[in-house]
Amino acid sequence: MTRYEEVAAILRERIEHGIYRVGDRLPSIRAVCQELDVSISTAQEAYRQLMDVALIESRPKSGYFVLPSRVPSVLPSVSRPAQRPLDVSQWDQVLELVATQRDDNRLLLGRGVPNLEYETLRPLSKILAGLHRSTDLNGFNYDKLGGSPELRQQVARLAIASGCLLHPDDIMVTTGCQEALAIALRTLTQPGDVVAVDSPSFYGTMQILKANGLKALEIPTDPQTGISLEALELALEQWPIRAIQVTPTYNNPLGYTMPEARKRALFQLAQRFDVAIIEDDIYGDLSFALPRPRTVKSFDDDGRVMLCSGFSKTVGPGLRVGWLAPGRYRDQAMHMKYVSTGASATLPQLAVAEFVAKGHYERHLRFATRQYQRQRDIMISWVQRYFPESSGISYPQGSFLLWVELPAAVDCVRLNERLAQHAIHVAPGSLFSASGKFRQCLRLNYAFTLTSAIEDAVRTVGELAAEMVADARSHESCLIG
Amino acid sequence: MTRYEEVAAILRERIEHGIYRVGDRLPSIRAVCQELDVSISTAQEAYRQLMDVALIESRPKSGYFVLPSRVPSVLPSVSRPAQRPLDVSQWDQVLELVATQRDDNRLLLGRGVPNLEYETLRPLSKILAGLHRSTDLNGFNYDKLGGSPELRQQVARLAIASGCLLHPDDIMVTTGCQEALAIALRTLTQPGDVVAVDSPSFYGTMQILKANGLKALEIPTDPQTGISLEALELALEQWPIRAIQVTPTYNNPLGYTMPEARKRALFQLAQRFDVAIIEDDIYGDLSFALPRPRTVKSFDDDGRVMLCSGFSKTVGPGLRVGWLAPGRYRDQAMHMKYVSTGASATLPQLAVAEFVAKGHYERHLRFATRQYQRQRDIMISWVQRYFPESSGISYPQGSFLLWVELPAAVDCVRLNERLAQHAIHVAPGSLFSASGKFRQCLRLNYAFTLTSAIEDAVRTVGELAAEMVADARSHESCLIG
Repeated sequence: MTRYEEVAAILRERIEHGIYRVGDRLPSIRAVCQELDVSISTAQEAYRQLMDVALIESRPKSGYFVLPSRVPSVLPSVSRPAQRPLDVSQWDQVLELVATQRDDNRLLLGRGVPNLEYETLRPLSKILAGLHRSTDLNGFNYDKLGGSPELRQQVARLAIASGCLLHPDDIMVTTGCQEALAIALRTLTQPGDVVAVDSPSFYGTMQILKANGLKALEIPTDPQTGISLEALELALEQWPIRAIQVTPTYNNPLGYTMPEARKRALFQLAQRFDVAIIEDDIYGDLSFALPRPRTVKSFDDDGRVMLCSGFSKTVGPGLRVGWLAPGRYRDQAMHMKYVSTGASATLPQLAVAEFVAKGHYERHLRFATRQYQRQRDIMISWVQRYFPESSGISYPQGSFLLWVELPAAVDCVRLNERLAQHAIHVAPGSLFSASGKFRQCLRLNYAFTLTSAIEDAVRTVGELAAEMVADARSHESCLIG
Repeated sequence: MTRYEEVAAILRERIEHGIYRVGDRLPSIRAVCQELDVSISTAQEAYRQLMDVALIESRPKSGYFVLPSRVPSVLPSVSRPAQRPLDVSQWDQVLELVATQRDDNRLLLGRGVPNLEYETLRPLSKILAGLHRSTDLNGFNYDKLGGSPELRQQVARLAIASGCLLHPDDIMVTTGCQEALAIALRTLTQPGDVVAVDSPSFYGTMQILKANGLKALEIPTDPQTGISLEALELALEQWPIRAIQVTPTYNNPLGYTMPEARKRALFQLAQRFDVAIIEDDIYGDLSFALPRPRTVKSFDDDGRVMLCSGFSKTVGPGLRVGWLAPGRYRDQAMHMKYVSTGASATLPQLAVAEFVAKGHYERHLRFATRQYQRQRDIMISWVQRYFPESSGISYPQGSFLLWVELPAAVDCVRLNERLAQHAIHVAPGSLFSASGKFRQCLRLNYAFTLTSAIEDAVRTVGELAAEMVADARSHESCLIG
């Protein structure tokens, strides 16, 4: 048991024994440090563990509070993917989701888009308008290939919160995090190479594997602690893996955050087998508690981690402002950046830089994450109410994506077909697998302002899923009878 | 002799016989059509031929005029590349040029950037500011994967002028023309494949070949009529060519425009060998005379031409608004677009769409091309005055790039090193070759407002080049003596 697990166990025992009761404020981090003689980061990690299992919650500026024991929802099960390299399929399914982001009348319950209606985003409009009013037409000129110095400086400043000490020159601006991921993969691999991925895994990255003729080796992944290091180690022994691609913080779609110790162990494992890591941290800043979790990159002492992130899930995906910290692979990554799109668009970079520099970004994060945390609980309660009883539900401590595992009888691709009549669309789990597994799973977005229309839609999804379960049962009993 | 060549010969004879004298206005296109009983496009093509050899010029809204016979400058010679597939090198040289586009104190005489100071661009700032003032935050959301419908409609409308009938759905918006080229090449090829290119050829495309492990087969190219169809045919017989990549209109860097008949013949050749064409038309709208030349795509009756273009050389490269008409390769290209950057940035697309829709684009083109035409002549006169006497100079009828072939003793990579002391940088010809040929050539940009500082810089380039010629001579005579 690590030190923070010990601390978490002590606190948990006190809660279970009623020493801290529902609604009580727990001792501050500082108080725990003093009492138990541990470091701040150990105490924070222990609190994070307790949040992960929904025993406590963090309330901004107030502290940590004991939660009422909610109807205990089952977590999704640990994935058991085929442990051999596979070609990626599923492009048709992905296209259906991504090609319909705007001007579609369907309610896209599974899309990966943040809430763009919050007032705390308003200053960005003003900043953009201001940039255009300025007489300087430099915004129409090429920016530096590596990105605007103003933006890179702000990204370096923000990265400190994730435990990374990056120089602005260690950062390359990209056209969205997608380009960062594509550059990282193309920098590290040749067609035919094998890439280890967590499973389920973000479909955008899977499709990059497909486009580059790479094979995905899906590693069993725990919905609480992330990619199985034990399975990964076996895979590294068995297969010629060129890179490990993971989303260890507020994982898309599973929602977990790998504990710090496991992040460190992941880095050490990569180091032992001399393999690079591509870390997708696009959701990392959307933490419900501060400080945000550390990245794997923060343990990187030899430059083998290529950290991919950006502002699509916080400030707005339409700006296409992403970034890459390419570590030791900088020169090659710069070439890939040049041939991919040249420099990225100038004005969005300058706007985001100013938005961050003036403190609007952190203010917006505080506001948005508070909403998301509340909305997560509402969405979970709806899923518990309307979905088949044995559904597993994730419990993310950041971001705005929920993963639901329905009974095996439900096929979410077919469910989507039935939902089309109701103008509703979910993200079927099969998107997140090389070979179309997880068909009984789906991803929901709770960044929406949760109106009764959304509740009705969630209920409809649950009802149609229940019908599929009932159909399967009656089919079974027919076979038996 | 084709019909338009006959017409051109008749007109040329009349000029040479003094029937039309220097400064005279030539008969209108319509008058020529009536007199010689030819079609409008034949008459236009004939006039274009005469402009290509600097016998006449087009003055907007006035007509065609006989030019004073200028000191006849020699054209650069026909290229004689190694006619076998080569790996592309030269990345270090390209990086030096593209990594220093902003905040560099050097005068980048060879950069590929249009003039962004013209008043006719101003409305774009207003449009952008207006977009941000609107309360709708959709600009921060993902756009459609294929691009904003508003923009695609405008692109389809503009494409008519190049002889293309495209439906908005035939067009995909990309993050600059660079992404269009990268997508086209990745759609058509696998690593190890051979791509035929004109020679010299745009370094950005060459570097895409390098990044994708493709081999370049450089085809001899005539500085007046473009890629040699005869050499290309031989190459198609001899090598397994997967795609032909050309810039047939206002070629970068050579400046030529392939005559229409040769464009058609190129298409037919590709058809006969069942090979795809990637056509780079990024400079096509910057025509000094209207109508602008047709594209190869305009002859495409079976969808084998992937047309790449955008607004980087007209409205502003920093917007990163490009587009691709992928023809029959649409599905595969859409996948490549998704994995490359997802949707492109939303606001620049909406801004360009409005800029075009309101007529600002065509107004800006008229103004900018008039400036560029005048500045071409000034730049040519400087080169004639200051460069070694036997230098070959291109004579483009559009765009803003000049190609100069210096005496063989001049090495423009070394010239650049000497120019660094004067804070001047040219684009050495070796950038435009897979194997670093054309070291005695360089590219100049005449989009600048041509101040005396620019003239001084051109003189410095010429003087240092002349020194290199003198050094070589004295070295030679030493060897002899």
